[in-house]
Amino acid sequence: MAVTVIGSIAIDNIETPFDKTGDVLGGSATYFSLAASFLTDVKIIGTVGNDFDRKHLSVFKDRSIDVKGIKTEEGKTFRWKGRYGYDMSDPETLMTELGVFSSFKPAVPHGSKNDMLFLANIDPDIQFDALKQMGAPRLTALDTMNFWIEGKKEKLMKVLELADIFIINESEARLLTGESSIFSCAKTIIKSGAKILILKRGAYGATMFFENKFFMVPAYPLENVIDPTGAGDSFAGGFLGYIDNTGDMTFDNLKKALVFGNIMASFAVEGFSVNRFLSINGGEIKDRFKKFREMTYFEELSE
Amino acid sequence: MAVTVIGSIAIDNIETPFDKTGDVLGGSATYFSLAASFLTDVKIIGTVGNDFDRKHLSVFKDRSIDVKGIKTEEGKTFRWKGRYGYDMSDPETLMTELGVFSSFKPAVPHGSKNDMLFLANIDPDIQFDALKQMGAPRLTALDTMNFWIEGKKEKLMKVLELADIFIINESEARLLTGESSIFSCAKTIIKSGAKILILKRGAYGATMFFENKFFMVPAYPLENVIDPTGAGDSFAGGFLGYIDNTGDMTFDNLKKALVFGNIMASFAVEGFSVNRFLSINGGEIKDRFKKFREMTYFEELSE
Repeated sequence: MAVTVIGSIAIDNIETPFDKTGDVLGGSATYFSLAASFLTDVKIIGTVGNDFDRKHLSVFKDRSIDVKGIKTEEGKTFRWKGRYGYDMSDPETLMTELGVFSSFKPAVPHGSKNDMLFLANIDPDIQFDALKQMGAPRLTALDTMNFWIEGKKEKLMKVLELADIFIINESEARLLTGESSIFSCAKTIIKSGAKILILKRGAYGATMFFENKFFMVPAYPLENVIDPTGAGDSFAGGFLGYIDNTGDMTFDNLKKALVFGNIMASFAVEGFSVNRFLSINGGEIKDRFKKFREMTYFEELSE
Repeated sequence: MAVTVIGSIAIDNIETPFDKTGDVLGGSATYFSLAASFLTDVKIIGTVGNDFDRKHLSVFKDRSIDVKGIKTEEGKTFRWKGRYGYDMSDPETLMTELGVFSSFKPAVPHGSKNDMLFLANIDPDIQFDALKQMGAPRLTALDTMNFWIEGKKEKLMKVLELADIFIINESEARLLTGESSIFSCAKTIIKSGAKILILKRGAYGATMFFENKFFMVPAYPLENVIDPTGAGDSFAGGFLGYIDNTGDMTFDNLKKALVFGNIMASFAVEGFSVNRFLSINGGEIKDRFKKFREMTYFEELSE
């Protein structure tokens, strides 16, 4: 089993009130693939410019991620510069340079055509094209953002029709559906296609809707958040990685998968860029799962 | 067993983007006592003016709350007027008239001296005086707000030294301790006195710290929030009411108590003023407990 992810590979510059980085590795496909790599086999499809430092490629290779789908093009790698405030929530974008990403046309390799597929937050036209290239993906999951909801809603809805899982921020679900209650959002979205809906709530966790069932988790609590960049994609990586690893689509297993999403997001924010992923050992992930269960478990009422 | 609460009884005027009220019953002791009354015996200590509509008294009496501690004084009942924005979080205060509440000097009746005690959010000088009047309260719980943290911190810390349970908003805990991590907040506060610390997170639930153990719940999800006023005091009422009902201070039982707090807060916000409390039946409370467990429960990992 394997997961293929299509999304951005970027060079980020990040500022928080406490520290800042130089050029560091970022991008939705980057965070997703590293997070998922602790749970299953991962293939990454993306594009970088000829300015892309080869040392970054070894970050993927060291986690046994298949990088054959990363194409190097003449031009500059996608760059993003952002600044977080004291609340460490939505960053201010200081600079975006699309570079070679502006003409990104992913070619899905033959070996990926029956994988689970994660369409990270990119242009719905590209998501649609990529999906059409797949043979019979075992499962397709989709992310997006307000920019595409406002600018390419029609195409986005076509992709959603073909997807199994939709993973977006709670506020984006409200924007997409025009509904304020998350239950009304879920009804509308599930009617439009996806069988499973995940609403991300940033520092407050996530909720899942599936077959009229509902599950929610608070975020994994941390002493110290260093850099929230990539938390959502790492969440998706943990969630889909665990589903791919177990091949079990029962609600009980999807709940555990959501907890793995939560936990991979918690590692992502404990360091700048993908740094924290480079120091995780397998025991630490299981240990957080166990601790998280202790923190949230309570007994039934005795009759 | 019984809980005695000392706090405000008020006449509120509330506006939301969707609706508004005329003069309605409010106040911290009001919400607390009604919420707790579904779980244990409650006595309320407070003051009202001679303008206080007697029909409000029957709201307490109908829930078998002991109102002998409500003193009617010459003057006006405490009035608060507030307006919520679209996010239904912190309201804007449009008007506060303390009235008879400005000279509130609670006298603790003999029958309350061994009760569990809840010192709702009032002047720490009054909280301290009331606590000194108690014989040996089985358990003392304390609430406060940023106004007293900024204005009477020294006295507040003296009350905290004598309290067993401290229930405050997460942002107020940060203000009180000057710490940003909730774990550092908890360490500092528990050193100052309270054995159990509850941090309320509004629409995002609550966390509990007790003997180096940690528990957290997301808020009970609702289709429709009508009026957030009194959610925190109703939370405290559910929490302490269940502890008083069971007399069990194990961590497992405190977890269940926190869930009851969560659930009583969910009822509070489903109607203006205390209206939703007037239509609850006991089955509904247990039903929400059961549903909440289903929404948050997940299995352990198999080895």
